[in-house]
Parts: sequence; structure tokens; C-alpha cells
Amino acid sequence: MPTYHIEMMEGRTVEQKKKLVEEITRVSVEILGGSPESVDILITDVKRENWATGGKLWLERTS
Amino acid sequence: MPTYHIEMMEGRTVEQKKKLVEEITRVSVEILGGSPESVDILITDVKRENWATGGKLWLERTS
Amino acid sequence: MPTYHIEMMEGRTVEQKKKLVEEITRVSVEILGGSPESVDILITDVKRENWATGGKLWLERTS
Amino acid sequence: MPTYHIEMMEGRTVEQKKKLVEEITRVSVEILGGSPESVDILITDVKRENWATGGKLWLERTS
Amino acid sequence: MPTYHIEMMEGRTVEQKKKLVEEITRVSVEILGGSPESVDILITDVKRENWATGGKLWLERTS
Amino acid sequence: MPTYHIEMMEGRTVEQKKKLVEEITRVSVEILGGSPESVDILITDVKRENWATGGKLWLERTS
Repeated sequence: MPTYHIEMMEGRTVEQKKKLVEEITRVSVEILGGSPESVDILITDVKRENWATGGKLWLERTS
Repeated sequence: MPTYHIEMMEGRTVEQKKKLVEEITRVSVEILGGSPESVDILITDVKRENWATGGKLWLERTS
Repeated sequence: MPTYHIEMMEGRTVEQKKKLVEEITRVSVEILGGSPESVDILITDVKRENWATGGKLWLERTS
Repeated sequence: MPTYHIEMMEGRTVEQKKKLVEEITRVSVEILGGSPESVDILITDVKRENWATGGKLWLERTS
Repeated sequence: MPTYHIEMMEGRTVEQKKKLVEEITRVSVEILGGSPESVDILITDVKRENWATGGKLWLERTS
Repeated sequence: MPTYHIEMMEGRTVEQKKKLVEEITRVSVEILGGSPESVDILITDVKRENWATGGKLWLERTS
């Protein structure tokens, strides 16, 4: 029943997401117990204009 | 003042969203009290490549 | 599979929460479809010192 | 290390976001301490069909 | 109508929270427009055993 | 820079949390790239009276 929310910079491939949710579910079941079906994972792809660190949008930091 | 966040698989119509926020607001006021204007509801449409259950993206589960 | 997060001011009874999750699940299934078992609801009880509207904590607004 | 999530109606310019994250980071460091680099801010642009107040989507309220 | 969620390490005083919500509301209205009453801010006090950076809980990092 | 939020039923030990954040950070860096220091993980311990599935609080489901 654990629920994971992952915020990551946009641009990751479906292939990366597939591997990530597979591995996180495996690790979660191993450490917390429960069945794989009880693990929910939601991903948010964040645009560079919507994430800031140190007072600067990543749009600016990386351009 | 209660604030609701609803994450649902993308594809719902505006008509469904209209009914849902109307009903949830009604139910909320009825049970928790307060005025309808104090109820905020935010919906997130989640893509099938961004939601996983049981270690598999819904993109894979339903294709 | 819709997931609801509800933030409300602390102080609601378990009885109110029981009714609320029952009603929201019913409304959700009715309007969005799916089975009741696919509806998850998570409640956060927020302290008055942790919620502000109009630049003032509710701790101050209501005292 | 504080992390800010800001949900706002869609339509704000990158220029407004730049100023907002700069000011919030400044204010955060001033009041809570820590370095600017430890402040993360994530913005969500919410569509008018995905935000409701008083049981009505903002799509309907403002049209 | 913008809604702010702030996650910070536990231990801040009510006085710090008062100043923070006052300043963030001021900055928000100044840059995004709208009335102060439309700004909601929710704070989450996070325990050191519930926040990790670099694979280590802050409980371990700072002890 | 990915940020993970994990909601789990209360009752897990600090030892379990330590292992979980270590493993998730490892998996995240392996699949998404970036440095371990860029991975933030926040855990929320949810009470049984605050999580419902199928319209019933877990408080009721398990008692």
C-alpha cells in the first residue's frame, strides 16, 4: 500500500520509467513487505521552467 | 477550507469533472461543515506512462 | 485507481472520516467508474499553526 | 532544504516565475536560515478545467 | 488562489512560521496578482527520520 | 534532483527507513543518472484512521 510520488526533470524515456518502477517496487516489497500489487507509483515530469534551486529556474541554470 | 487533490488516469471529460467537483463539495460540506466556497479541489490527469501498480506502468498493463 | 488526498484542519472525529471516505468513494465510482477497491483516500490533519490564508496562520485568525 | 510546491492557475510567464522563485528563496533563507542552494521550488501550472472552488470548475466560473 | 505547500525540517517556531507566511503572501500577490485572501499556505514539519538526501536520513547525517 | 515522496502506513522502524532510502537512492542514480546527493526522499507515516481503500478506513479494515 505504500504510494510513491516521483518528481523528475522532464525528458526521461518510457524505458527508464519502466525500469525505475520495476526496481522501486522490488525494493519496496523487499524492505517494507506487502505484495507488489499494493505498490503504487506516480511520476511527474517537471519542466525546466517549473523547477528552481538556489533561486534560479533550471531553465536559466542550464542555458 | 478542506483542500482535495485528485489524481486520476487521463481521459476523463470536462462533464465528468464538473459532476465530480460538485458532488465532492456537497459531500464535504455535509460531513465536515463549512461553506462550499471554502472547498478547493485540484485534479491531476496522469498519463498511462506515469502511473505504475505492481511494478508495471499502466501503459504496459493495458496494451 | 483514482487517489484522493484530503487536507483538513485537525479536530475531525473518526466518525466523520468514516462517512467522508465512504461517500467520496461512492461518488467517485458513480462518476468515474471503476471498482470501490480501486479508490484510495489519504487524509492529512493540518494543525492551525501550519495553515495560513491571507498571510495569517489560522492559529492567529481564530484566537 | 525546505521544499516549496506552488500550484497556480496556468498562464503565468517565465518572467513572473523567475521573480517568484528568486523572492521566495530570498525570504526563505532570511527567515528559516540555510543556504539559497538548499531551497527547492516546484511549480505546477493548473488548467482551469482542473481547479474547482465552491463546487464549480474555474473554467465555468470565469467563462 | 495560488496554493503553497512548504516542507521543512521540524523545529521552526510559530514566530518563524508567522513571518514566513506573511512574506510569502506579500511576494505572491506582488508578482502574481490576486488578493491576499486567495493565497493559501500549508506547512509540513518533517522529522529527521523522514527526510533523506544522498541516501542517508538526516537523523544519521546530523548525529 | 529527483524528489521522492513515500506515503506508508505508520509503524515502520528507522532501520527499515534507512535501508529503503539507501536502496531507492541507489536505484534512482543507476537508472536516471545524477549524483546521490541530488536525490531527496521524504517519508510520510500515515495513521490507519487516515487511509482508506474501498471506502473503508484501514482502522476498520484491520480491526
